[in-house]
Amino acid sequence: MKTSLCDILNIEYPIIAGGMVWCSGWELASAVSNEGGLGLIGAGSMSSAVLKEHIQKTKAATSRPFGVNLPLMSAEADNNIRIVMEESVPIVFTSAGNPSKYTKTLKEHGIKVVHVIANEKFALKAQDAGVDAVVAEGFEAGGHNGKEETTTLVLVKQIADKVSIPLIAAGGIASGEQIAAMFCLGAKGVQIGSLFAASNESSAHINFKNAVFAAMEGDTKLFFRKLSPTRLLKGDFFTKVEEAESRGASAEELLELIGIGRSRKGIFEGDLANGELEIGQAASLINKPLSVKEIFKNLLTEFDSAKKRLRYE
Amino acid sequence: MKTSLCDILNIEYPIIAGGMVWCSGWELASAVSNEGGLGLIGAGSMSSAVLKEHIQKTKAATSRPFGVNLPLMSAEADNNIRIVMEESVPIVFTSAGNPSKYTKTLKEHGIKVVHVIANEKFALKAQDAGVDAVVAEGFEAGGHNGKEETTTLVLVKQIADKVSIPLIAAGGIASGEQIAAMFCLGAKGVQIGSLFAASNESSAHINFKNAVFAAMEGDTKLFFRKLSPTRLLKGDFFTKVEEAESRGASAEELLELIGIGRSRKGIFEGDLANGELEIGQAASLINKPLSVKEIFKNLLTEFDSAKKRLRYE
Repeated sequence: MKTSLCDILNIEYPIIAGGMVWCSGWELASAVSNEGGLGLIGAGSMSSAVLKEHIQKTKAATSRPFGVNLPLMSAEADNNIRIVMEESVPIVFTSAGNPSKYTKTLKEHGIKVVHVIANEKFALKAQDAGVDAVVAEGFEAGGHNGKEETTTLVLVKQIADKVSIPLIAAGGIASGEQIAAMFCLGAKGVQIGSLFAASNESSAHINFKNAVFAAMEGDTKLFFRKLSPTRLLKGDFFTKVEEAESRGASAEELLELIGIGRSRKGIFEGDLANGELEIGQAASLINKPLSVKEIFKNLLTEFDSAKKRLRYE
Repeated sequence: MKTSLCDILNIEYPIIAGGMVWCSGWELASAVSNEGGLGLIGAGSMSSAVLKEHIQKTKAATSRPFGVNLPLMSAEADNNIRIVMEESVPIVFTSAGNPSKYTKTLKEHGIKVVHVIANEKFALKAQDAGVDAVVAEGFEAGGHNGKEETTTLVLVKQIADKVSIPLIAAGGIASGEQIAAMFCLGAKGVQIGSLFAASNESSAHINFKNAVFAAMEGDTKLFFRKLSPTRLLKGDFFTKVEEAESRGASAEELLELIGIGRSRKGIFEGDLANGELEIGQAASLINKPLSVKEIFKNLLTEFDSAKKRLRYE
């Protein structure tokens, strides 16, 4: 499964665990890196002090490369950038913001930079900003999502031939067959979210994980197109949002409905009644609790069988 | 590229051109079959008399297998079923309806039957009804679409291991790399819509084709979730529908807005101001007029390069 991305990031398998709010702490990040993938700490739900603690614990738990996902729009962005440099984090994934703002500084500190995009324009912009790779994240992805609603199958094909840096496919991927499919399109790696969000090592609450295992086709939907498109899992909050949008609720009304701290409530505290449950469409493919070790074993086996499928078709 | 589907349908390549309203007449169907794929006549926009004429012209233009796509909810369904049997059409694709209603009768007349679905439940139901293969059509597809909004990448993976009959992937596919990707997931063939809708042999109006060539990422969207989800291309009608849905228009109001004959106006007559333009998300991948012959050449070359990519990763 080795690709050029492995050389750039110094990893064994080009499998990245997304840095997800309330899921991706030091336990998940270090477990993924220890299996030869790239574990990311999700700074989006962390204060700078908490982020620092998770970085130090990850370093203690793995000798392999790991990274931090930093949403650039966050109020803590400046502080968090300082911390990843102080702590010599080897790899930073930036998202939700302008990659030209921090890429040069991070690279001057010897940090590899990968930026997350959802369309061709921003892929080229990120490449121009000097990032080492881009993640193309499609409509299937959980949580915040691109405005174009381009699916991973179309997005990765659209961008793969246009950029010269390695492309990482994301959105809807929860199996080794899908990794092979992304390689066919020209991706050099994958970022997997939901599957790791529901893994044993994820910090998410067991209630949340059980809701993911129970999810069937059609049980996640994209909402908040008037604000920032977000994919949610079925539940009380989902129903409330669906009803509000169906009758044409305004952006202001939707903002009020979201309130504050809902994703923490849903994902971290397991309050399925009031929480916001962010998960990708691949939830319907995830049916039981698995350790990161088991997940890697499955992905590698499935990848090999997909390769054989293509060879003998 | 040969798969078990080729043996069942007696075709050279497991590439099917979708039977699309106002696009898929005898010229497109016979051209695709002559290249070794499977051309389908789209009965959805035809009276029984017109369908009969197109079947006879297709027979005259190709000695290879071809098919007819029959939407089962159509008012003409009973008549059209009679005609395909009278005319000994070798293959019928049924969609939008219950596969158990006609499958047995068609098969007794020696006709191969393929049913189009958008979720696992209906895939299994179609298999139980005795169809020879199923098409799994994802969220990316143009025109009418599944309620679950499952993308092709997730849908094909979801269903491939659950059915024992061949699975045909559809939605968002407009390149050979994507065909290889679908094979990795377990598909035994692909149904391609938009790329053939914009081909030289399609009956669509040149204005419509030019609008497809000009389409960029984000230029198609899914509307009419309150009626029957439908993917449209940007234009005046798109803007009107978007505005109506944003303010919470009711199903009744939307029905009135659609009116009658809009897809004919948009696709066949090229009235971009008042017409309904149905096209898939893959429109952003299609940039210039191509003949069916050129399309097959490209698909086969791209498929081979994707296979190589996977082998050497």
